Amino acid sequence: MSGNSLGNLFKITTFGESHGKAIGVVVDGVPSGLKLSDEDIFFELKYRRPGNKYVSTRKEEDKPQIISGIFNGKTTGMPLAILIENKDPMPLHYEEIKHKPRPGHADIAYIEKYGYENWDYRGGGRSSARETVARVAAGAIAKKLLLLNNTIVAGYIKASGDLFIEETPNFDEILCSRESEVRTIKSKEEKLKEIIEKIRKEGDSIGAMVEIIVKNPPKSLGEPVFNKLKSDLAKSLLSIPGVVGFEYGIGFKSYKLKGSEVMDEIYYDGKFRFRKNISGGILGGISTGEDIILRIAFKPTSSINKEQKTIDMNNLKPTTLSIIGRHDPCIAIRGVSVAESMVALTLVDHSMLSGIIPKVKLTDQQSDIIEKRWSEFKEKCM
Amino acid sequence: MSGNSLGNLFKITTFGESHGKAIGVVVDGVPSGLKLSDEDIFFELKYRRPGNKYVSTRKEEDKPQIISGIFNGKTTGMPLAILIENKDPMPLHYEEIKHKPRPGHADIAYIEKYGYENWDYRGGGRSSARETVARVAAGAIAKKLLLLNNTIVAGYIKASGDLFIEETPNFDEILCSRESEVRTIKSKEEKLKEIIEKIRKEGDSIGAMVEIIVKNPPKSLGEPVFNKLKSDLAKSLLSIPGVVGFEYGIGFKSYKLKGSEVMDEIYYDGKFRFRKNISGGILGGISTGEDIILRIAFKPTSSINKEQKTIDMNNLKPTTLSIIGRHDPCIAIRGVSVAESMVALTLVDHSMLSGIIPKVKLTDQQSDIIEKRWSEFKEKCM
Amino acid sequence: MSGNSLGNLFKITTFGESHGKAIGVVVDGVPSGLKLSDEDIFFELKYRRPGNKYVSTRKEEDKPQIISGIFNGKTTGMPLAILIENKDPMPLHYEEIKHKPRPGHADIAYIEKYGYENWDYRGGGRSSARETVARVAAGAIAKKLLLLNNTIVAGYIKASGDLFIEETPNFDEILCSRESEVRTIKSKEEKLKEIIEKIRKEGDSIGAMVEIIVKNPPKSLGEPVFNKLKSDLAKSLLSIPGVVGFEYGIGFKSYKLKGSEVMDEIYYDGKFRFRKNISGGILGGISTGEDIILRIAFKPTSSINKEQKTIDMNNLKPTTLSIIGRHDPCIAIRGVSVAESMVALTLVDHSMLSGIIPKVKLTDQQSDIIEKRWSEFKEKCM
Amino acid sequence: MSGNSLGNLFKITTFGESHGKAIGVVVDGVPSGLKLSDEDIFFELKYRRPGNKYVSTRKEEDKPQIISGIFNGKTTGMPLAILIENKDPMPLHYEEIKHKPRPGHADIAYIEKYGYENWDYRGGGRSSARETVARVAAGAIAKKLLLLNNTIVAGYIKASGDLFIEETPNFDEILCSRESEVRTIKSKEEKLKEIIEKIRKEGDSIGAMVEIIVKNPPKSLGEPVFNKLKSDLAKSLLSIPGVVGFEYGIGFKSYKLKGSEVMDEIYYDGKFRFRKNISGGILGGISTGEDIILRIAFKPTSSINKEQKTIDMNNLKPTTLSIIGRHDPCIAIRGVSVAESMVALTLVDHSMLSGIIPKVKLTDQQSDIIEKRWSEFKEKCM
Repeated sequence: MSGNSLGNLFKITTFGESHGKAIGVVVDGVPSGLKLSDEDIFFELKYRRPGNKYVSTRKEEDKPQIISGIFNGKTTGMPLAILIENKDPMPLHYEEIKHKPRPGHADIAYIEKYGYENWDYRGGGRSSARETVARVAAGAIAKKLLLLNNTIVAGYIKASGDLFIEETPNFDEILCSRESEVRTIKSKEEKLKEIIEKIRKEGDSIGAMVEIIVKNPPKSLGEPVFNKLKSDLAKSLLSIPGVVGFEYGIGFKSYKLKGSEVMDEIYYDGKFRFRKNISGGILGGISTGEDIILRIAFKPTSSINKEQKTIDMNNLKPTTLSIIGRHDPCIAIRGVSVAESMVALTLVDHSMLSGIIPKVKLTDQQSDIIEKRWSEFKEKCM
Repeated sequence: MSGNSLGNLFKITTFGESHGKAIGVVVDGVPSGLKLSDEDIFFELKYRRPGNKYVSTRKEEDKPQIISGIFNGKTTGMPLAILIENKDPMPLHYEEIKHKPRPGHADIAYIEKYGYENWDYRGGGRSSARETVARVAAGAIAKKLLLLNNTIVAGYIKASGDLFIEETPNFDEILCSRESEVRTIKSKEEKLKEIIEKIRKEGDSIGAMVEIIVKNPPKSLGEPVFNKLKSDLAKSLLSIPGVVGFEYGIGFKSYKLKGSEVMDEIYYDGKFRFRKNISGGILGGISTGEDIILRIAFKPTSSINKEQKTIDMNNLKPTTLSIIGRHDPCIAIRGVSVAESMVALTLVDHSMLSGIIPKVKLTDQQSDIIEKRWSEFKEKCM
Repeated sequence: MSGNSLGNLFKITTFGESHGKAIGVVVDGVPSGLKLSDEDIFFELKYRRPGNKYVSTRKEEDKPQIISGIFNGKTTGMPLAILIENKDPMPLHYEEIKHKPRPGHADIAYIEKYGYENWDYRGGGRSSARETVARVAAGAIAKKLLLLNNTIVAGYIKASGDLFIEETPNFDEILCSRESEVRTIKSKEEKLKEIIEKIRKEGDSIGAMVEIIVKNPPKSLGEPVFNKLKSDLAKSLLSIPGVVGFEYGIGFKSYKLKGSEVMDEIYYDGKFRFRKNISGGILGGISTGEDIILRIAFKPTSSINKEQKTIDMNNLKPTTLSIIGRHDPCIAIRGVSVAESMVALTLVDHSMLSGIIPKVKLTDQQSDIIEKRWSEFKEKCM
Repeated sequence: MSGNSLGNLFKITTFGESHGKAIGVVVDGVPSGLKLSDEDIFFELKYRRPGNKYVSTRKEEDKPQIISGIFNGKTTGMPLAILIENKDPMPLHYEEIKHKPRPGHADIAYIEKYGYENWDYRGGGRSSARETVARVAAGAIAKKLLLLNNTIVAGYIKASGDLFIEETPNFDEILCSRESEVRTIKSKEEKLKEIIEKIRKEGDSIGAMVEIIVKNPPKSLGEPVFNKLKSDLAKSLLSIPGVVGFEYGIGFKSYKLKGSEVMDEIYYDGKFRFRKNISGGILGGISTGEDIILRIAFKPTSSINKEQKTIDMNNLKPTTLSIIGRHDPCIAIRGVSVAESMVALTLVDHSMLSGIIPKVKLTDQQSDIIEKRWSEFKEKCM
């Protein structure tokens, strides 16, 4: 409730600021017997890492260190604490904003809530998207655990500027967008690079829509009536900085649709199926076993190289501000990894609530299945 | 976690099925000293009640009975249990669907999760939107408490079929949509009635987009980083049956927008303000004090008078089904009240978390302010 | 957190006051498929009911009514609401204490916390032990579920006045104390009746120590490091009105004991066992599978027919008070049922957390096993 | 729920094992504006630290490092992560117990729950009392915050072996027991040293009873009916390794007492008071404002230098074990600090729930008051 924890049985607690010593996460509820290494975490972190010309130029190694909960290469059932040091903070860049809250950022909200005198203005402090590195670290564990049911979560940029990918691509294309510098499917990569490059040169930023597919999700996830799967997915995804919308299945275009247009035949082929999966894999708030399909909206980051009007906190008079930090022209590019992680974390928590992933202990066999699938998963798209 | 409770300090727990004895809610966390009567609850319930030709023809009085937590007309600080009896269930209508799960409904999800043999098929049982009467009952208390800060939550149907109200209307128009049989602003009422009437005659249904405005919200609501106000609003709104999307501020159109287009000047006029409130009243997940503006998408209800393809549970063979229950051509009409309630419940909980609404006890003066504003609130739009 | 809910996966929320319309409980987290009737609940309630000369003379039928969550005699997985009406409140008895808070009772604490003007003084309102009828109703469900593992919880009065039963009796003796009017083992019944009768005639009250044994508890219950089984048992038992102490295993006599005196050999007879079960079935906060043995202390109720010194709330001057309500000379007699219920509720919650009792659905076979054992359980001691 | 977090608004999450890299804690819910340094934490840690002949000979500096949540010497409202490195682990000592679970320890419970193959046998891993260093670190923050209301928590060893201090000493004596090597009041120090020294030489261990007094507690803490202050104190104290009992006020001797013997006059001297404070500062589960008085029982540690019978995990045959690690002859000596911390943590959480300590932000004035009182507090007993 104090805000920095998420989940019920599989629970993460994050800490750390953009320009503090480290970002970290405690993952409580990992069953014993899961093989896990720093490298497993790093595999996921590198897809979120800054470092090419389409994203922030901040240089962070993002080498994670697991400091508890592991013994002889396997989890013990005890909480895992993972630390990621901040290696390339540049606090000097932030002296100007010390007394000039950035419009569109959390600055003024933190100042008002926690007090100007207590405000960590260095790169937004805790409100920086740097915090999300902790989520991706935890998300790596969640993704591994989901492989027990062969469940895979993958996302891509579906729309940004005048790019809009109408049809949901096939799953392998989506998964392999992780190798793209602009995190979209191969056939649209050049188009998106042009868009981002143009925006970057203008010193501007652009929003985006991200689509996430969950392949082979367990059925029966979700607790009526308030902890529905759709509710908890919405919550976890909206907690990402810059996310301003969530929809699944037909989503917002529903206002134009008739019931007769969204009829979806139930049939049986050994299990209950839906002919068109119009509901995006969730009915009554509970997963049906069909692929889960959801979309989120990222706003354009407010950090742009254009003069912005704000307040000087020293005298409460109008002033102007030009952001000079290192920023992402389109935060959604690195945001896809974060969104995948939030979905994975939510699915694992609900899988434990429903008894589908063991909460306490993995058998040796389960552990081996996961490890094998994890190897295959890592090798995909190469 | 078991799914039927929502909230932290101001917590509701609901129970009851569509065709059971009663629907009910326990509201835990109401401070002592609030004047409250069955009539206060009923005032809100009547805006959700079925009964005109644009909504379900089910006849329910929806007279609530508070059975605990009140003494001498005021709350005691103890939990309030509120019961609303089911007076007009028609179980016979549901004999057909007993073995024919309705496509697009929660039926199959409940059958799979809880077992066909344990399934309360009468009108969807717990998954029926009838359950939401409990939320509106609790929402009435939340709405009253919000008046301590003069905060009002109001919504309307913004889009359905070929109606789309681009500009957010002024707040009084929105609030007074509660007197409309189709729950939209006066100037668009005829248009929407035509749309609904046409759909109803076709035996079809239609989706809708609902916009909710919070006037005078307290600032500083929301807990970084997971219990952001936007996250908890998304969760509570997505828990409503039929809701498939949530957005606030610029929402899903963000993918087409540049940072330079959404710059929003901060200024100071005795308090910190935003010139255009582009962020919809929430920055960094925390309320800024500007009006909160959000939208949700309702899907068209799957209960239509057209033949649908499904499975016969007796033999797992294909069959067809024509729904003959009493249903809403556009669930969003009555859904507006439910959505307002979910927003109000979330705001009160966060107000208590932030110390803005007292958790334990109202002073006599606070109690009187609320009662006076409540009278005024009830008389509006008459 | 708002205080009226307990449990994580198996969660109860209670409501109602001593002299209000009803006492009730919502039980959220009961798996589907459990056979359950009003009579099952009543079976347990009658062991807590007032009505003989050793306990309160208040006359309450305590006929429970399950109003949700049941369909065709079985649970559906949805929350169960259970109501127990108050049939014999005597509010007139309480006019005197309206302005005279009873020493040793919760009165003054409620007045200070929630306001004198909002205080439900009728029999202590919510702070009355009448509230515990809701716990026993929920406890009946918990006890049924525990039978899946053949686990039985039973308690008895171990000490009161100059009675002290040193050795823990055999389990059947303990279980059959439920048929005793003074809730102790047969061989000590006369002794305890004399003690209570004497106290009753003096218009006084007496404390007691209750011992609870859990026969065949599942092993591996308890979550390190804060949600240990011992922690959660302590919490749930201390929540009972009048309970002022908890211990398990060697408990408070430990200060006199050496490590060498409490050594307890581990051996293996198909499973890991402890020779003497000195630790009372819990090690490291986790159940070992040996019987759980714990004790709680009940204070003498403060409601006695002797003049007590208190404050007149009208003028804050000293005054005196003689309680004239109907009260228990030894609250522990009826408290044993309540304590058993709290233990059973805690064990079921932890069993679900550890995956030992299914959280979502019972199979038909599991359902039948429980029903058969429940019949046997009810017939014992007759 | 996953076991490693405690608290609602003021929440701690701990991690780390006895012989891992570090022990740590995340403290979520510290209001902004609190002055806080590594030294403040260390001040409390040193009272728990091993290092004299009456306690373990393990050498740990226990220098804490705050790695988040602080900016310019004050808290920012963001979570504080605190790390304490393990400098003196001696894993070699533990090779024997690798396959010989120690009787009376958590070993067998962990092996059964999490799997022998996943068991961190090094000094008990997570079940070691070394984990409690994290609690004392967090407790230092709680103790500072409590000074806002001038509340101080202090404990001492009340009984061990043939020492029993009948009367509760005056508060300064109790507080200054922190300077004693055996953590009891000055006048009984020699006696207790003799007892411990004798036990140590015998290679044995001894239990103890610890009494904790809360001076100037806020009134009105505690939430009916399950989150009573007594319930939450019991839970947090029972979570300490080795604690097997909790009582407050008259506690377990209640079974011998009559209601007439525990009558306690209410009077008014500007506030409501109790003449004898028989209830130990808590009535109806809510603090009365009188001193809180509670006691806990520590068992003798099972780590003794005497041969113990156990199982060889390699063949499930009986074997013997002589513990050779470094251990405390009386864990309660260092346990007093831990117990004080758990009480302080619980009180701060409840103070926030009741609005008595601000959850979000301290004013400058509040911050200064706390700092001044903290200086005075640290200087006491010198």
